[in-house]
Amino acid sequence: MDKNDFFELKGILEGCDNVLILTHKSPDGDTLGCGFGLCAYLRDLGKKANVINNENFPVRYNFLYDGYYVQEFEPQFVIAVDVADAKLLGSHLKAYMEPGAVDLCIDHHISNKFYAKKTFLDGKASAAALIFYEYFKAIGYEISDHIAMCLYTAIATDTGCFKYQNTTPSAHMAAAELMQYNIGFETINRRMFDVKSKGRIKVEQRVISNMEYYFNDKCTMIVITTELMNSCGAEPAEFEGLASIPLEIEGVVIGITVKQRHENVFKLSVRTTEEVDASAFCRRFGGGGHIRAAGCEIEGSLQEVRLKVIQAVAEALGEEYDG
Amino acid sequence: MDKNDFFELKGILEGCDNVLILTHKSPDGDTLGCGFGLCAYLRDLGKKANVINNENFPVRYNFLYDGYYVQEFEPQFVIAVDVADAKLLGSHLKAYMEPGAVDLCIDHHISNKFYAKKTFLDGKASAAALIFYEYFKAIGYEISDHIAMCLYTAIATDTGCFKYQNTTPSAHMAAAELMQYNIGFETINRRMFDVKSKGRIKVEQRVISNMEYYFNDKCTMIVITTELMNSCGAEPAEFEGLASIPLEIEGVVIGITVKQRHENVFKLSVRTTEEVDASAFCRRFGGGGHIRAAGCEIEGSLQEVRLKVIQAVAEALGEEYDG
Repeated sequence: MDKNDFFELKGILEGCDNVLILTHKSPDGDTLGCGFGLCAYLRDLGKKANVINNENFPVRYNFLYDGYYVQEFEPQFVIAVDVADAKLLGSHLKAYMEPGAVDLCIDHHISNKFYAKKTFLDGKASAAALIFYEYFKAIGYEISDHIAMCLYTAIATDTGCFKYQNTTPSAHMAAAELMQYNIGFETINRRMFDVKSKGRIKVEQRVISNMEYYFNDKCTMIVITTELMNSCGAEPAEFEGLASIPLEIEGVVIGITVKQRHENVFKLSVRTTEEVDASAFCRRFGGGGHIRAAGCEIEGSLQEVRLKVIQAVAEALGEEYDG
Repeated sequence: MDKNDFFELKGILEGCDNVLILTHKSPDGDTLGCGFGLCAYLRDLGKKANVINNENFPVRYNFLYDGYYVQEFEPQFVIAVDVADAKLLGSHLKAYMEPGAVDLCIDHHISNKFYAKKTFLDGKASAAALIFYEYFKAIGYEISDHIAMCLYTAIATDTGCFKYQNTTPSAHMAAAELMQYNIGFETINRRMFDVKSKGRIKVEQRVISNMEYYFNDKCTMIVITTELMNSCGAEPAEFEGLASIPLEIEGVVIGITVKQRHENVFKLSVRTTEEVDASAFCRRFGGGGHIRAAGCEIEGSLQEVRLKVIQAVAEALGEEYDG
C-alpha cells in the first residue's frame, strides 16, 4: 500500500459514521488490536463506533478493551479487520456474510476473498495492525498510548513476538517506536507468551502426553476430542492456541492439531517448517491460510479423519503409508 | 558509547594481533555471538584470532561456529566479551582471572567489575552484541552474513526474542537490519526458542506434574532431585534452563527451582515478578543476582531446605507459615 491508498482510506474513514467493526471468530491479538485501535481512532474523530465479535471478547485480551463501552446507534458502515473471508466472522455474525454486507475490509491475508465492497490488502504485512500503523504515520495522526498498545499487541502476537518467518523489518521498526509509548510492553509479552493458568498447564500436560508421532517423528499430531476437553475439567478457552505445540519437537516438519467441533466434524490447524507448504496441505481439504500456518475442516469419524490426514502427510512428505 | 569510543576501539582492534577471545562459562547466545562475530572480523582484518570457553561450545549454537577452526599462535592480546567478572570465565580459564591478564573487555552488564586493563561498557545495551553492531556501523565496516547471524542470535537470545524488559528500540532497529542478511532468522528463533527434544519434553512433563504450590499459588516450586534426573532417562543437559517454568503460572510472583547438587546440597534458582526482589531473597542464603532472577546454594536435607525456603518466601510475601 502506498501514500495514495492511505489517503483514499483516510477519505473513507473520515466520511463514514455509526461504524460497526467486525473481528474474526476465535479472535486473536491482531483482529482485536485492529478492532479496538480503529474504534478508538474513529471515536477520537467524533464518530460513533463499536467492535463486535462472534463470541465474548476473551479476558486474556482485556487490556485492549479496558475503558471500552458500547455506543447506541444504527450501523451505517461496516468494517471488517483482519478477516480474510466473511465465513470467518462466525455463525452469530451470519448477517454480515451476505454479499455487500461489509463495506470495507482491511486485511493482510493473501488468501483474502474480497467479499467486501472495498478492500485494502497488504499481503506483505506481518499483521493487519501494521497497515493501521503505516496509515496513522502516513496521515500524520498522533496515536494515543492505548492505540499504541493495541497495535503493539497485534504485531507481537501475530509474529510470535518477532520470532516467526512472517516478521518483517517493518514489524521491528514499528515495535521500536510503539514500545516507547506508555504500554508496558514487557507485561503484555509476559501475559501473551509466558503466563499460563493452572488449567492450561493441565491441558498442555494431557495433550503432550498423548501426542502422536509419524514418519520418524517428522510429523506430530495432537487430537483434542470433546471427551478429552470434558475430562480435563478446564475452561474451553484453555484449549485455544495449542496449534504451535506439535511443531515444538526437534525434527518435526509438520505439526497438526485436530480438534473436534461436532460429533463428526474436526478442525485442523497445521504448522510447518520450510520443508512443507501448510497452505497447500490445507487446500486439499478445502481450507487455506499461510505457508507455515493454515487450517481446514474435515468431516468423518476421528478414525477416518486421522487416516485422511496421515495419508495427506505421507504425500506431502513423499513417504509411503499403507494405513 | 559514542563515536569517539568506537574510534578508540577501532584503533585498539586494528592495532592488536594474535588475539584470544574469552567467553563466559555456561555460554549463552550473547557471549558466543560476540565471540565468533569478533573473531570473524579480526580474521577478516588479516589477524589471527581464536575463541575459547571454559567448556566445549554447546551443540545448540553450532551454527555460530560452523566453519570456525583453531589457529596456531601464541596469544598476545586477550579480549573478554560479555564477561562481567573474571570469575565468570570458569575454572578452566583460571589463568585469565589474574589481574592484568585480560587486555580488553567489551560488555553490557552494569555489574561489570572492571577487571580488564581497558573496558568498553554500555550498560543500556540489551546485549553485548549491540555494542559490536553499533561499532561496525560507526566505522563503516560491512559485516558478512555470518557476522549478522552472530549478532542477531546474540540480541534475540539475550532479550528472550524481544520479549523481556531489557529490550530496547535499538535492539529492534538492529534486528530490522540484521534479519535482512542471509541468516534464516526464523530458523534461528525456532531453534533457540521453540524446539525441544523428546527427552526435554519428558523432563518438563515430569517437573510440571510435580510442581508445588504455596501461599494461594503466589509461590510455585519445582524440585529436581538426583533420583528424578536418573528416573527420567534424559541427558543432564535436558535439565538445564528449567528455572523460568515456575513463574509461568498465572498469579505467581516468586518461582523457585530447587536442584540437587550433592547428597545434601541444593541449588536454588529464583525468578520473580515486580512484587518480589529475587536478589534480596537469595542474599539471605549467601547468593545474589539480578532483581528478577537470582540464585544461591543451601545445605541440608531436601526436607530442611524446603522448609527454609518456604519460610523465607513467607517473610518475603508477608505471609504466615507454621511449617
